[in-house]
Amino acid sequence: MFDILLPEQSEFPLYQQLYLQLRDGIRNGEIPDGQRLPSVRSLQLQLNISKTPIETAYQMLTAEGYVISKPRSGLYVMNPCKEFTYSQQHQQPPSMNTMSVIRSHANTNPNVIDFNPTRLDQAAFPVRIWNKMLKEALDHHLCEIGMYGDPQGEYALRRVVSEYLRNSRGVNSTPDQIVIGAGTAYSIGLLSRMLKGMKHVAVEEPGYSLVRDQFQLNGFEILPISLGDKGISLDRLEQSHAELVYVTPSHQFPTGGIMPYPERERLLEWANAKNAYIIEDDYDGEFRYHGKPIASLQGLDDNGRVIYAGTFSKVLTPALRMNYLVLPQALQHQLTQMRQEVFFAPSRVEQWAMTAFFEQGHWFRHIRKVRNLYKKRHHRLIELIETHLAKFVEITGQNAGLHLQLLVKKEATSEELIQEAAKAGVIVYDLRKTWINQRQDAGQYPKVYLGFASLNASEMETGIRLLQKAWNMN
Amino acid sequence: MFDILLPEQSEFPLYQQLYLQLRDGIRNGEIPDGQRLPSVRSLQLQLNISKTPIETAYQMLTAEGYVISKPRSGLYVMNPCKEFTYSQQHQQPPSMNTMSVIRSHANTNPNVIDFNPTRLDQAAFPVRIWNKMLKEALDHHLCEIGMYGDPQGEYALRRVVSEYLRNSRGVNSTPDQIVIGAGTAYSIGLLSRMLKGMKHVAVEEPGYSLVRDQFQLNGFEILPISLGDKGISLDRLEQSHAELVYVTPSHQFPTGGIMPYPERERLLEWANAKNAYIIEDDYDGEFRYHGKPIASLQGLDDNGRVIYAGTFSKVLTPALRMNYLVLPQALQHQLTQMRQEVFFAPSRVEQWAMTAFFEQGHWFRHIRKVRNLYKKRHHRLIELIETHLAKFVEITGQNAGLHLQLLVKKEATSEELIQEAAKAGVIVYDLRKTWINQRQDAGQYPKVYLGFASLNASEMETGIRLLQKAWNMN
Repeated sequence: MFDILLPEQSEFPLYQQLYLQLRDGIRNGEIPDGQRLPSVRSLQLQLNISKTPIETAYQMLTAEGYVISKPRSGLYVMNPCKEFTYSQQHQQPPSMNTMSVIRSHANTNPNVIDFNPTRLDQAAFPVRIWNKMLKEALDHHLCEIGMYGDPQGEYALRRVVSEYLRNSRGVNSTPDQIVIGAGTAYSIGLLSRMLKGMKHVAVEEPGYSLVRDQFQLNGFEILPISLGDKGISLDRLEQSHAELVYVTPSHQFPTGGIMPYPERERLLEWANAKNAYIIEDDYDGEFRYHGKPIASLQGLDDNGRVIYAGTFSKVLTPALRMNYLVLPQALQHQLTQMRQEVFFAPSRVEQWAMTAFFEQGHWFRHIRKVRNLYKKRHHRLIELIETHLAKFVEITGQNAGLHLQLLVKKEATSEELIQEAAKAGVIVYDLRKTWINQRQDAGQYPKVYLGFASLNASEMETGIRLLQKAWNMN
Repeated sequence: MFDILLPEQSEFPLYQQLYLQLRDGIRNGEIPDGQRLPSVRSLQLQLNISKTPIETAYQMLTAEGYVISKPRSGLYVMNPCKEFTYSQQHQQPPSMNTMSVIRSHANTNPNVIDFNPTRLDQAAFPVRIWNKMLKEALDHHLCEIGMYGDPQGEYALRRVVSEYLRNSRGVNSTPDQIVIGAGTAYSIGLLSRMLKGMKHVAVEEPGYSLVRDQFQLNGFEILPISLGDKGISLDRLEQSHAELVYVTPSHQFPTGGIMPYPERERLLEWANAKNAYIIEDDYDGEFRYHGKPIASLQGLDDNGRVIYAGTFSKVLTPALRMNYLVLPQALQHQLTQMRQEVFFAPSRVEQWAMTAFFEQGHWFRHIRKVRNLYKKRHHRLIELIETHLAKFVEITGQNAGLHLQLLVKKEATSEELIQEAAKAGVIVYDLRKTWINQRQDAGQYPKVYLGFASLNASEMETGIRLLQKAWNMN
């Protein structure tokens, strides 16, 4: 079964040859999924080598997620890239520490249905086109490959982003106001430096912990402001001493609410009166499944109080570390005064590729495709929940984005619900990191979150049926 | 000459069609380098459209460096990607504001010879292979494209980097001690957060301003320590109250000195006695042209005091934003305690491509190739300087890296020397940002810096001969 050939002479160390052969065998399917690897001892005998290179190769395969270790049993192949279908026969979930598997980045256990709110559909990624864009990027810009680029981001990319935002989100800007960032943590870090005079930032509670943490790391005091059904409580905001507020008005993260027009106007008036800034994070603004698109807050702002943030991660792939900010003109002037070494755009090659992706119309086609795909999945998930979980749950945060919020009408904590689900082979989320202050469930029904972008209809159905059983909702 | 066809019907705005046609014509050579573009008025008449789309298209071409504006003359094509040869006939330098052109990122003026210390040779970039690595990266990892990766960097890349550093630089580490970063600014920012208890960082004076600025931004007090001929003054360091020191011992930036072995031992003893940390930045450690390679400081450290930093920028391309840190185990433990949102690795696709680039042996072949290329250019430049500038200059900082330091024995400031050179069409650098305190030239002969990686022998010769004239060194 294991035809491993180690040539007599090789420039590569034994463990590396072994690792590469096994890994390639797993990738191309020669070593099938679920196959148990030979024990170290038996491979030692078969290959007539010491056990150290074998143990090293096995450790590497485990660390990279190609095999999984079953206690007292051995190493089993688990090709992270094999499409999985859940079979009723394989109902025993792998013995695992639930929380650590849930948080594990590396593995996709084929026996588990994961309603991950941050994962996208793998098959939707336009791999052939993106490949072509990368190749063209290298060909067209080869002479610049020896140089550092514009720390604010390549001009051509800033131009296409500026145009796209104007047309799709009503954001007003020139390319000079755009800053291409190497991810949200980077951009918020940069902003917090630019806004150094300010000390207090109001955030939505619950809200996006990554942004909160970045502000905290950069010396800001965090003022959590509770949410009403129309977004951040403007009464509380007006009573606070915030000089800066971070909001997600198109689709509140994580509850999903959308801030209506009158509240948007009132927020802008607050900012204007206080000379405060508003960071509008439109992280999944392209995904709206019902009704007319709501224009951005930035588009309503006549006084340069709104900093608009967006990303390519939700539409294309989180594997790129690339996002953008639109700065009001006053802050853009400040940026030009800053020493250029303190901020840096991401990979030039990927910026060039993204520019061509826009210019050749691929971005628009891709958005239409994934919006339709996710819209269908969104509707299907709601149907399944209404059918199988019925009066036991209440859905909120729908009609936009890539996840739903479920209010579960049971006497339990969200943690207990998650554990029951995990035992049945279903992963759902409580997003507890989004809360600073209270226990999420204090005095209320528990909330759980289900993403739907990375699951097909059959997987979703299986998952919901399993939840029905696990949560006793028959 | 300008066959611009604007179709009757198009989904694209006029300015964009015009921009794309002109840009493609410049890229493929149909519109030759040096060609003057038609005036807005004449194109208006030719195409029968308003002037606004034409002006917009022209502005875009200018901002992206495809054309350059000559005052009272018009727009001239200047394909940034055309190889340039300097002809003695075209001796008038373009009328330009010297300092702003020198600092300009966008344009490569074909009539100027630029001894840029941070540029690499464009033709050396292995474009076909890198393309292949990107394609394979996407093919092999497609199933992960919908997910965020390991914030510390992809395990497989950390593994190949760990092995490479052990074999090439004597750095001891496991993959868990490696942190893949999105550039130096990012990595230093992360380090400054991890070392929050410390307040004072000693830096080489002169030294690398980007790193200094990052520490300052993150609340550290900078203690500049002068250089002796054996690197940072250890006497001064020992008298200071630094808890952290940043050094470039393999090839001091910018002076080029190499820290000898006894000083390395003494530096390690200092750090051990004070429980201080040393950041060893080995930014161009692969480029050593004389004598045996010097092992890293980290390799001599038995007490976990050294944080080793390296980058792919000098060997492969600065267009990637990717570098790495090797943390001592105590700091690596601290990293695992940090919330995962506060640090994030760069593009997964490029990490996967870099891993394959190593695994398939391309990195090693590439290093050998560019090391030989840059070694030849290094030797040639020294020959040319010794021949044509002879007793007027003294070369230091040679035998390693990608630039030389020239002590110019003239009564002038470095700024004056740079301006004289620029008028003659040669760009040299004073790297004044590397100094915090004194005027670089205070009481001494001026120093200028010449990079050589991006120039061929003929360009270097032309450049040195022009310097000879410009600086009256006949």
